[in-house]
Amino acid sequence: MRGRGGIAASRKLQRWWRGCPSTAISDDFFVSGRDGRRMSAAPLASALNNVVAGGEFSNRSQMFHLVARYKGTNPLMKLRDYQSFRHDSSQRTLGLKLRSFGSASIKVPRSTTFSKINTEDICHFRAILGEKNAIQDEDRLSAANSDWMKKYRGSSQLLLTPGSTEEVSQILQYCDSRQIAVVPQGGNTSLVGGSVPVHDEVVINISRMNKIISFDPVNLYDSQCGFIMPLDLGAKGSCQIGGNVSTNAGGLRFLRYGSLHGNILGLEVVLANGSVIDMLSTLRKDNTGYDLKQLFIGSEGTLGIITKVSVLTPPLLASTNLVFLGCRDYLSCQKLLMEGRKALGEIISAFEFMDCASMEMVLNHLEGVRNPFSSSMYDFYVLIETTGSDESSDKLKLETFLGKSMEKGLIDDGVIAQDMSQTLSFWRLREGITEALVKAGAVYKYDLSIPIQKLYDIVEAMRTRLGHSAKVLGYGHLGDSNLHLNISTAAYDDEVLSKIEPFVYEWTAANRGSISAEHGLGVMKADKIYYSKTPEAVNLMAAVKRLLDPKGILNPYKVLPSSLVLPN
Amino acid sequence: MRGRGGIAASRKLQRWWRGCPSTAISDDFFVSGRDGRRMSAAPLASALNNVVAGGEFSNRSQMFHLVARYKGTNPLMKLRDYQSFRHDSSQRTLGLKLRSFGSASIKVPRSTTFSKINTEDICHFRAILGEKNAIQDEDRLSAANSDWMKKYRGSSQLLLTPGSTEEVSQILQYCDSRQIAVVPQGGNTSLVGGSVPVHDEVVINISRMNKIISFDPVNLYDSQCGFIMPLDLGAKGSCQIGGNVSTNAGGLRFLRYGSLHGNILGLEVVLANGSVIDMLSTLRKDNTGYDLKQLFIGSEGTLGIITKVSVLTPPLLASTNLVFLGCRDYLSCQKLLMEGRKALGEIISAFEFMDCASMEMVLNHLEGVRNPFSSSMYDFYVLIETTGSDESSDKLKLETFLGKSMEKGLIDDGVIAQDMSQTLSFWRLREGITEALVKAGAVYKYDLSIPIQKLYDIVEAMRTRLGHSAKVLGYGHLGDSNLHLNISTAAYDDEVLSKIEPFVYEWTAANRGSISAEHGLGVMKADKIYYSKTPEAVNLMAAVKRLLDPKGILNPYKVLPSSLVLPN
Repeated sequence: MRGRGGIAASRKLQRWWRGCPSTAISDDFFVSGRDGRRMSAAPLASALNNVVAGGEFSNRSQMFHLVARYKGTNPLMKLRDYQSFRHDSSQRTLGLKLRSFGSASIKVPRSTTFSKINTEDICHFRAILGEKNAIQDEDRLSAANSDWMKKYRGSSQLLLTPGSTEEVSQILQYCDSRQIAVVPQGGNTSLVGGSVPVHDEVVINISRMNKIISFDPVNLYDSQCGFIMPLDLGAKGSCQIGGNVSTNAGGLRFLRYGSLHGNILGLEVVLANGSVIDMLSTLRKDNTGYDLKQLFIGSEGTLGIITKVSVLTPPLLASTNLVFLGCRDYLSCQKLLMEGRKALGEIISAFEFMDCASMEMVLNHLEGVRNPFSSSMYDFYVLIETTGSDESSDKLKLETFLGKSMEKGLIDDGVIAQDMSQTLSFWRLREGITEALVKAGAVYKYDLSIPIQKLYDIVEAMRTRLGHSAKVLGYGHLGDSNLHLNISTAAYDDEVLSKIEPFVYEWTAANRGSISAEHGLGVMKADKIYYSKTPEAVNLMAAVKRLLDPKGILNPYKVLPSSLVLPN
Repeated sequence: MRGRGGIAASRKLQRWWRGCPSTAISDDFFVSGRDGRRMSAAPLASALNNVVAGGEFSNRSQMFHLVARYKGTNPLMKLRDYQSFRHDSSQRTLGLKLRSFGSASIKVPRSTTFSKINTEDICHFRAILGEKNAIQDEDRLSAANSDWMKKYRGSSQLLLTPGSTEEVSQILQYCDSRQIAVVPQGGNTSLVGGSVPVHDEVVINISRMNKIISFDPVNLYDSQCGFIMPLDLGAKGSCQIGGNVSTNAGGLRFLRYGSLHGNILGLEVVLANGSVIDMLSTLRKDNTGYDLKQLFIGSEGTLGIITKVSVLTPPLLASTNLVFLGCRDYLSCQKLLMEGRKALGEIISAFEFMDCASMEMVLNHLEGVRNPFSSSMYDFYVLIETTGSDESSDKLKLETFLGKSMEKGLIDDGVIAQDMSQTLSFWRLREGITEALVKAGAVYKYDLSIPIQKLYDIVEAMRTRLGHSAKVLGYGHLGDSNLHLNISTAAYDDEVLSKIEPFVYEWTAANRGSISAEHGLGVMKADKIYYSKTPEAVNLMAAVKRLLDPKGILNPYKVLPSSLVLPN
């Protein structure tokens, strides 16, 4: 029932927040969009039933239960549209070579330690979950077996959709005893094959666990003041918060709010053996023992399944500005970032860039987008967003900064969004790149952290290597030195791949970068971890994995080289 | 050679910062004070030799080596003064009952699994470190055996002062093989007995490892722009960054910059068996495998010894304001916080409070402090600091907010600091409480996270319980719901203690708080962990401890109940 009600304008969940727990419980919440429109809880209640809200309260009721989709975040794209886009794009990509590809072109063999499921197992799961939540329907299995870009495909024969922590616990307890491998799945938006089976792992999809259990209504004195998720990313239309936390998702506002390691206050996690670890807390500070929840943030479902999340939600500030700029070269983008950090200081909330190839890709493949500079094209484009508490002083700061940057020749042209529609259209250009790439054909995606001075060098080096055989796009979160390097071809091609890898990893390692800034390793890069981590660190990770999941049933073949954690 | 050069004006280390690594290496840095005075690297080089800087470069030279004191942060108190204060206060407290007290009044027995050191061991350590760094001198041992408040005293016979990661590794490798227990020590400013031996553990003091290896000179385009540590705390005059990270220190700017879990980019750690785990990174984003460094942040030296740190340093902003307010009741303080968060949004950088008893304590016991409101006393005092990029707009926001709050009756009186001297004198009132308490006699310290509405209730409840037998003070980081509850008596007294504990822990647990917001558990609260954590979570912590330190040699008797991690 995705998209029922078409909650289109909800950019993100807004919550009152107290920054500390309270005995008071409330399930009121706001959903507000970039257009600032708000809906109060009451009229939303029914429409959001299967989307973001719900009435399930935990026994520690001050906790959030944020394993929820925060749906429909692009006000211009309704959920129905999103679904049809997914459908449409899957049709297109089906025409491409449909197989595991990229770094995982040689598929990791199935471990013989894992049992194959039998009729008795299925009966057992049905007894736990009820008939309709132990799914063998071919269409639903097909969707669960494949990622949305159709790059990775497993052959699971069973999809389980638990509705509570207790059910997740019972499932895992059984799977652990029978040595049945599982893959946790949320919105299934992984870009590295992290959320689909590699072989016949049982899929545990926790999409039903999408209730907000409670939030702290901080503003006893002004209930009109909202709060936001400290995370905003391209997949916000379909990703889930449990998956965001498992992947340590970064996104567009990382520059302002930082890592989820600093924003997640508490977690409830089910370990491989079914035991439930309650690390929920709504306290900003808690130094009692090791901060174990941190282990699960970014572990991609290989150490436990996250069933509840408590998040620090920063206040919604009154004033937001967005500017779209054209720059002549990469050095100007860099300088602009340095100047912007200083001049805009505490109000800067996003600093994104995209190159000319990215702009062309969007303009050529997405409908309803337009170049803010009419027909003029620039080599680079920069989006700067500010968020602050006072409109006039924010605007003044921004305009002063832009004026000075124009004088210095760092900006060739620029537009300040004048209204919500323009704001959305600017964001659509940046956020639409992924979608445009899928429409264009095959895409090889790399997500790199690279020292900022060198960040664009890899794009140019890749263009030189690939010549006319591919389009090479560079865009991403410049404010965090995070490049999304994307290579677009008509169809997946091993020859192209051999020119890309291992070159891209070797280059990144040589420049002291990270081969996964925010996407994670998944199955795509599990055996590439040594490009960014030392053998000693990887061995320690493997020891932690073996401690928490001795039989290796949780999301096998992902994150770490299988040889370190699986007997066979 | 503490204090050599008398670097008095250095509030914190300022660094150029790039937010990403670079091939460029520089050991330039700034030390600047609240008065904004800066000194460039060159003239500081010699003076700072033993304080913050140095020439040691790691083999991954882009990394910080921030196991450094950031000394002399109170411009009014020279290091020499600080030393004499410590000396003076230790003389006074020696007059009190000198023994382990507080939660640890029943001392945990020595584990028989640990070897006692012998002559051969000492010879071995001398061979590794040289004669002068394997110390048996009585005075130095006495200092290393006791915390600065003279609450906890061990009986170590050996103090080791390694100067490099390699030396730390060799020490631990040997201790592990011989099953010799050790306690890592930095500035020895723990308030929970975390940094002194409980019995005869060998002290490994890493104060010598205080070099800045490198920093990223982000601002290639404007080298005048500085950067700051994302941490500021009362112990800044003597604490060390390795210890800050090990304790996950919070402090005054937590409200603005958040937890160290979000600000530490990388660590190098030596495990119990001597193996060196290089998790150093200067990247803002790196999702390659488990984020193991998080385990060591806040583990109080029980999982490994931190030997290198890479920190994200936010930009130094141009405008800082500080206001000192008098309020009639606790509810006004709460409301002021709520209003302040909204009105000051992105520029608020600290929100501290102290009650009348705290103010009296400071006025009565510290020299050179004065009441900003002359002879008028209020029941509560609030300090609000703003930090932003534009002086005029920040001032306007602050003044508007203060005006409205006065109108609403939330503020009874207030002073905006007009110059650096006034700024420092306001901070001295808040930061001087700990020092005043030590001068006043015995002090029972509790560091609690409590839901903000209930936060002051425990102070009043404690006053009722203790009557005239003690002075009960409440102050702390209101913006983070972090109360420092301090009970002052003429001398330590078991009867007083029995009225305080376990009441304070039971009350906190019943109100869903944390019994250690930022100080850690140390030896004081190791067996109190269940007040804030579930048995399942504690068992998992113990499993992690046994994995990383199977023989339990690292900082034994601390953080976790010994029964879980030590054979005897």
